[in-house]
Amino acid sequence: MRVRKRKGSDEYIAENPQWVVTEPTTWRGKWHERFGNDHPIHIEVGSGKGRFITEMAKLHPEINYIGIDIQLSVLSYALDRVIEADIPNVQLLRVDGSELTNYFADHEVDLMYLNFSDPWPKSRHEKRRLTYKTFLATYEQILVLNGEIHFKTDNQGLFEYSLASFSQYGMEIEKVWLDLHTSSYEGNVMTEYEEKFSNKGQRIYRVEARFKAK
Amino acid sequence: MRVRKRKGSDEYIAENPQWVVTEPTTWRGKWHERFGNDHPIHIEVGSGKGRFITEMAKLHPEINYIGIDIQLSVLSYALDRVIEADIPNVQLLRVDGSELTNYFADHEVDLMYLNFSDPWPKSRHEKRRLTYKTFLATYEQILVLNGEIHFKTDNQGLFEYSLASFSQYGMEIEKVWLDLHTSSYEGNVMTEYEEKFSNKGQRIYRVEARFKAK
Repeated sequence: MRVRKRKGSDEYIAENPQWVVTEPTTWRGKWHERFGNDHPIHIEVGSGKGRFITEMAKLHPEINYIGIDIQLSVLSYALDRVIEADIPNVQLLRVDGSELTNYFADHEVDLMYLNFSDPWPKSRHEKRRLTYKTFLATYEQILVLNGEIHFKTDNQGLFEYSLASFSQYGMEIEKVWLDLHTSSYEGNVMTEYEEKFSNKGQRIYRVEARFKAK
Repeated sequence: MRVRKRKGSDEYIAENPQWVVTEPTTWRGKWHERFGNDHPIHIEVGSGKGRFITEMAKLHPEINYIGIDIQLSVLSYALDRVIEADIPNVQLLRVDGSELTNYFADHEVDLMYLNFSDPWPKSRHEKRRLTYKTFLATYEQILVLNGEIHFKTDNQGLFEYSLASFSQYGMEIEKVWLDLHTSSYEGNVMTEYEEKFSNKGQRIYRVEARFKAK
């Protein structure tokens, strides 16, 4: 997600260490301590302006959520929402998706969301797609055994690519939605982006895929 | 595919044993003898009125094609096309898709097509879908090791179901097209049904999936 640079994001984030994790390597293997309970940990990689992760946290107090994004300004908007929600089960983390093993111990994460990831449509940028095999290897390491990725996008090319990428990595496709908003799927929490593009008539694709023991 | 009953289909088919195989069990393990060469064998299960299999056979003389359908009237229309084409590399077979192991030896088939199979949308009819696991087990047995199924449909529900069914059976999703006719895919041969529904604005979905050694 690209957003205009927001002045003072740096300071704003630094002033709110109770919501945006500083020194994230400290918490590797200790996220349950940070949340103060043993609830499952669900993460969103590329959490953007934070609507999805915050709304999910409100709906599911029995789950701990961590929204992850590398972009400062974007994360500062997510912080607005998190501060407003003022609930104990959501945290923000400003790190790169390719380095997640620095911040999560093996099998520490129970479920992972990818929402409207950058499609990187050019072939030469394949390695940057968050569903490329090197990313999948990272996710597999930090997720519980047989852990799942729940992925949605409006981008047809990225969805076609990701189905094949998941499968070729050895993941199992559990369920596919080729038009989420007209389906019987219940409890969908929309991202900012999703609402905007769905209103323009774009289909939303969704898949749940599971890592398999090898 | 449902078509109106065609009078005299039975006699018509019986009169053309050079195109429509009689006593198909005879050829189990001997299809190369029937074709008189060692070319690869590709089959279409549910070949309907035969446009796809006949056009493919015209385009690819180096491949032997067998169109399979259980419905008499439908097969008689396919026979019209096969007689008109008058080429040595296409045959028709009137048998049931669930009994293919009676007519093909293990690993005798090189590639399999499923085109616009009946969607059987009700859950209680899941077992009748040609991408249900019991059918997949049959196809796996007659296909070469790491053999592929190439499947297309306009039915969103059947496509969603089939992606998950292939994957859960242990097949690998090689490539997915979520809108075949606007894609860069070359050499698509349309079925009668495909042309009709595509003209009405329906998207055509396609997947290539591969069996994996277990």
